[in-house]
Amino acid sequence: MAARLFEIGARDGTARAGVLRLAHGDVRTPAFVPLASNASVRGLAAAEVAELGFEMVLGNTFHLFIEPGHAYVAEMGGLHEFMGWPRPIITDSGGFQVFSMGHGSVAEEIKRRRGETKSRILSIEEEGVEFRSYSDGSKRFMGPETSMEVQAALRSDIALAFDECTPFHANRDYTQRSMERTHRWLDRCTSWHAEHGPEGQAVFGIVQGGVHEDLRAESSGYVAQAPVDGVAIGGSLGQEKEQMREVVGFSLRGLPADRPRHLLGIGDVDDILHAVSAGIDLFDCATPTRLGRHGTALVADPERRWRLDLTKGDVRGSRAPIAEGCPCPACREHTCGYLHYLARRRELTGARLLSLHNLTFMASLMRGLREAIAEGALGAYRERVMRGEAP
Amino acid sequence: MAARLFEIGARDGTARAGVLRLAHGDVRTPAFVPLASNASVRGLAAAEVAELGFEMVLGNTFHLFIEPGHAYVAEMGGLHEFMGWPRPIITDSGGFQVFSMGHGSVAEEIKRRRGETKSRILSIEEEGVEFRSYSDGSKRFMGPETSMEVQAALRSDIALAFDECTPFHANRDYTQRSMERTHRWLDRCTSWHAEHGPEGQAVFGIVQGGVHEDLRAESSGYVAQAPVDGVAIGGSLGQEKEQMREVVGFSLRGLPADRPRHLLGIGDVDDILHAVSAGIDLFDCATPTRLGRHGTALVADPERRWRLDLTKGDVRGSRAPIAEGCPCPACREHTCGYLHYLARRRELTGARLLSLHNLTFMASLMRGLREAIAEGALGAYRERVMRGEAP
Repeated sequence: MAARLFEIGARDGTARAGVLRLAHGDVRTPAFVPLASNASVRGLAAAEVAELGFEMVLGNTFHLFIEPGHAYVAEMGGLHEFMGWPRPIITDSGGFQVFSMGHGSVAEEIKRRRGETKSRILSIEEEGVEFRSYSDGSKRFMGPETSMEVQAALRSDIALAFDECTPFHANRDYTQRSMERTHRWLDRCTSWHAEHGPEGQAVFGIVQGGVHEDLRAESSGYVAQAPVDGVAIGGSLGQEKEQMREVVGFSLRGLPADRPRHLLGIGDVDDILHAVSAGIDLFDCATPTRLGRHGTALVADPERRWRLDLTKGDVRGSRAPIAEGCPCPACREHTCGYLHYLARRRELTGARLLSLHNLTFMASLMRGLREAIAEGALGAYRERVMRGEAP
Repeated sequence: MAARLFEIGARDGTARAGVLRLAHGDVRTPAFVPLASNASVRGLAAAEVAELGFEMVLGNTFHLFIEPGHAYVAEMGGLHEFMGWPRPIITDSGGFQVFSMGHGSVAEEIKRRRGETKSRILSIEEEGVEFRSYSDGSKRFMGPETSMEVQAALRSDIALAFDECTPFHANRDYTQRSMERTHRWLDRCTSWHAEHGPEGQAVFGIVQGGVHEDLRAESSGYVAQAPVDGVAIGGSLGQEKEQMREVVGFSLRGLPADRPRHLLGIGDVDDILHAVSAGIDLFDCATPTRLGRHGTALVADPERRWRLDLTKGDVRGSRAPIAEGCPCPACREHTCGYLHYLARRRELTGARLLSLHNLTFMASLMRGLREAIAEGALGAYRERVMRGEAP
């Protein structure tokens, strides 16, 4: 089935450019998938997301399970019709969010706030996870079958198998046992899906194994032999970019070349350049829209990590756009000096304009990558972007 | 000068339809003026506001004085260029906001919370008002000359003269003394403007006088004889709709027929129908956008005061749009059941969609009024809208 789902049109080294043929349309890869966690890309209309050049969005299984509930979304015609987005949707498994409630989120981990968050997880068993709803405090359960059932009700184009997202601070022993359980959950997911999954819905398995080379190899091997249409790389990818790239390398090594590969939750420009070169096809990340809502624009400036914080005083009074030549409405119609004022006041219009700008930046980066691979010029493109040229 | 500024093209009873010819373009009246208090219509791009059919927005002199400061806006090319809105702008005088800090806002008054708000006003003198900035607590001053100077720096098409907005709870004696001071302030505003005002900027005087018939008559007479291009009706209009209509009547009686009239802060459908019939040309109100941000849609339903609260359970599961035939993106692309979910979660996309819907509703109402007056059919139009037909 993988051959029909994914066609690789061009290769440049280990990088690939291709087309994912999904139930609701094609997705050209490498692709960045904007988050529509709660059935909308925050502040944007669905039609606008398509106009920006995105062909798929990511819906959040866990959040939609809690609120408004998958039965409600199904009653409203499925997630596509519910949110007015007729194009492909990938839904995450819910594992990341479920386990974030217990392990603490990655952000909390980075900020060393682990332990401060009171766990909402009541138990993690072979069957699944029992937890308290953040919405009403009620006791809820999610296991592999629940996750697949929710994703079936949402009718997403790609469902992700339920996994435990092991945190960075987990020891090797826990990481291994968790990974093995995730593999057993994968089997339960594919079994459930074979019997009950909606027609045309693809399933991706998730590679876990923490930062450990042998565990990543084992997990890739396990997912590779499973009846899945594609593979996602999840879990802790390490504390630093170097380690993350190493772990992505460990994970990719055992994967079949013909199936699409999604690197979960990664979205920094340099990381995307690196991962695409290594053979990743799909990315999702909250960063572009979240940064936008908080007043930061993505710009062609590697030394500032491609970020321009518009709330800072150095853009005050500037009558220049964020980026000359950028086709987004923030750049076409507004100055940095105006966006600075909106960002400082946290005005809705500013959050929206910067979200539009940042997604325009990401769309342009991914288009550049696809074209570079097609031309066999990925190396030169990477160098240009890393030198600070506009993507 | 009034004759050149305002052309009345049609009359129906005391109602008029016309064109305001302003420095940045024409405004067809009767018109509703959306609030762009802090240099943006919340959540919308300037171009979208124009596409909805609005020809003028209202900027907030007081807020822009505090943040980012009128000197900054001037340095950025004036308010039009700053916010990317090339069409007419009316700026309020700042009086309403300055005095709200001391008297409590109208909303607080209605909710009987007066007294709970700690006053930020340090003194109200003949010269002007000293107060503490809500932004940084610094001591600031605003008087008639300050207000005009700020509005000159903003380069709005219409500046409003500085006034004290007397609250409903003020007694007759205070209201009278305040009104008399507002009249002296009007003279200082027109004097300042005659010498320093930017070319092409019109000035409107404001009628005060609380709910008292004789004071309103006196105030209208005073403003009528002043060298102003138009008149705004401000201050406390009473506690109930009946009284408000009566006070508008008192205020209109002494006004010259040939000058444009703006009723400040009024925006309910029935109030607009009534005021347009009485001879009002311009309206501004926070309601359409504020309601939208809080999950309420304007609908053709007089019994619900034209409001549909989408956060309520009765629209849950509805696959109907807010209004059949409405051309806004919320209605064209989304169901009430989806908007209900977004509104309950206070999602940005929902706030934006409902703001677009509500402004579409207001634009349609004003277009309907203009056409009805031109056809001499205002009575029938009012009746249809009051019966619950779409405007």
